[in-house]
Amino acid sequence: MTVQPATLERPKGSADLLVRLSADDMAAVDALIRERCDSPVPLIPALAEHLIGAGGKRVRPMLTVAAARLSGGRYVTPDGPLKLAASVEFIHTATLLHDDVVDGSQLRRGKVAAHLIWGGASSVLVGDFLFAGAFEMMVEAGSMRALDILARASRVIAEGEVLQLTRAHDLDLDKATYLQIISAKTAELFAAAAESGAVVAGASDADAASLRSYGMNLGLAFQLVDDALDYGGVSEVLGKNTGDDFREGKATLPLILALQRTGEREAAFWDRTVGKLKQEEGDFERARSLILDSGALKATLDLAQDYAEKAKADLAGFPADDWRLSLEALADFTVSRAS
Amino acid sequence: MTVQPATLERPKGSADLLVRLSADDMAAVDALIRERCDSPVPLIPALAEHLIGAGGKRVRPMLTVAAARLSGGRYVTPDGPLKLAASVEFIHTATLLHDDVVDGSQLRRGKVAAHLIWGGASSVLVGDFLFAGAFEMMVEAGSMRALDILARASRVIAEGEVLQLTRAHDLDLDKATYLQIISAKTAELFAAAAESGAVVAGASDADAASLRSYGMNLGLAFQLVDDALDYGGVSEVLGKNTGDDFREGKATLPLILALQRTGEREAAFWDRTVGKLKQEEGDFERARSLILDSGALKATLDLAQDYAEKAKADLAGFPADDWRLSLEALADFTVSRAS
Repeated sequence: MTVQPATLERPKGSADLLVRLSADDMAAVDALIRERCDSPVPLIPALAEHLIGAGGKRVRPMLTVAAARLSGGRYVTPDGPLKLAASVEFIHTATLLHDDVVDGSQLRRGKVAAHLIWGGASSVLVGDFLFAGAFEMMVEAGSMRALDILARASRVIAEGEVLQLTRAHDLDLDKATYLQIISAKTAELFAAAAESGAVVAGASDADAASLRSYGMNLGLAFQLVDDALDYGGVSEVLGKNTGDDFREGKATLPLILALQRTGEREAAFWDRTVGKLKQEEGDFERARSLILDSGALKATLDLAQDYAEKAKADLAGFPADDWRLSLEALADFTVSRAS
Repeated sequence: MTVQPATLERPKGSADLLVRLSADDMAAVDALIRERCDSPVPLIPALAEHLIGAGGKRVRPMLTVAAARLSGGRYVTPDGPLKLAASVEFIHTATLLHDDVVDGSQLRRGKVAAHLIWGGASSVLVGDFLFAGAFEMMVEAGSMRALDILARASRVIAEGEVLQLTRAHDLDLDKATYLQIISAKTAELFAAAAESGAVVAGASDADAASLRSYGMNLGLAFQLVDDALDYGGVSEVLGKNTGDDFREGKATLPLILALQRTGEREAAFWDRTVGKLKQEEGDFERARSLILDSGALKATLDLAQDYAEKAKADLAGFPADDWRLSLEALADFTVSRAS
């Protein structure tokens, strides 16, 4: 296996400072999340708890909390940022529930996907319950502008998911369309999470726009790295399944670039494995080698690094306090987890 | 076939006056609906148009418009009621899309169900798109209270759907649970449609509560009649398929009452056809006869009539203008369509 030395030299970064600074706020957000999963219909908290209790990194609600703290804290309502943070996690969870039904995924956060236990119908309806509950909490947060931001984001996410669905198994998918898809289905919620936190904390328009841009760039870096990790990243020891995207024929950037760079020589291989989705033993390993050897993986991670740098630059106007440092370290960490 | 004379004497009612009075407002609502179905992702307007373009009665958005008109019209924003009415139709359409996936329904509004043309995944995601779009329009309507009402309603609808799902094929379902289910999955949106229309038009708390109650009672009457019509109503000429609820073993009130009234004598029949869902040729006709002859159908329609009367009584405090008359006539019409 080819090791890409450049990748190993990326800034390490860490989420530790952000996790530590936001610990109290996030404990309150977690309590709110659990409280709002409750319902007189027992299946609802059972299914919601299965997914929400499985953990996850809570990056998105942490962004809302951090953006509010960084924006000074003239809150519209005292617990506005916490309510919005919980809303953001509800929207994310609803999206995961619906996506897993749409993709027929087997695993989520290391546990059997909810739809395999309670059925697809329950996952769809509990997703709807969480989505509606998110908007109830936004109303309580009291900021019409924050509501607008998160409603718009929810619509853009759905558009991104549909776009991805209609372009599945598409050998001709280009980088621009790929970036359009991940910006809608992933980065938009990062952007809205940060922007709405800023807005509910009374940030200036310029600060809210900077935090939105930070979230967007971070989200793009995050998804690029996720898509690189599905080909095993650069290290072999990752503790997660790889190859799902390849097996589904999903055209993510590592594959798009490898197709461009090796397409003529390997036309038959790509057409069979991705175009026709007829895969055999060893195909993933060969695809992985082509992606590594053609530099497609390195190019994907370099692009992720570019977005992480842009994210850090978006914070330049804020005082260099611990919150800003923690968000800068998070941007570096997002990329370094692939090396 | 037994004809229930009492049923034929119900007040006839009509939706004509309401349709006529609200024609201009509803033309604007329809234009808004079509505009907001648009998206750069072509599948979205195609799928949404398939369902929304198929018509439907638009009863719910009409309630929003009528409640706003009846409440005097000191609107929060000039087109607030229209935006809310379009939101209500979007929520309703999203619910239909998700329900048809959940139930595996074949037909909707006389057309092949969307999920059979574009797949369940598309129906789930376009439902999400419409749901998010509904909240964007609510933000534009500018009333936080109206947003709260419709967000809460959306959550209650999902809870009702999950409750119905977990109690399917349940021979022990009682009338109270049945009423709880239809109040959540159907009547809540009628109630919220009317209440939010009142609120955005600056109605007093008392008037908003009366219109909410009108919507709730109308919604209960509407669903009871729908469930009666699934056993053919009282007339044989209805121009719609009957028997879907029976074939799915869905315990609606006509069946619940027939089980209570004929359960001992017909225990084996009900256990086989509904409990075990092993149905043969002629079973539906026999179930229908038992439901008619035991008076279960008449009792269902009598209850619907009671709710329609309550709905009309809820309007007593409003001036007896054309709008009030149109809503009274709508309540009677809701029940009379089954006779």
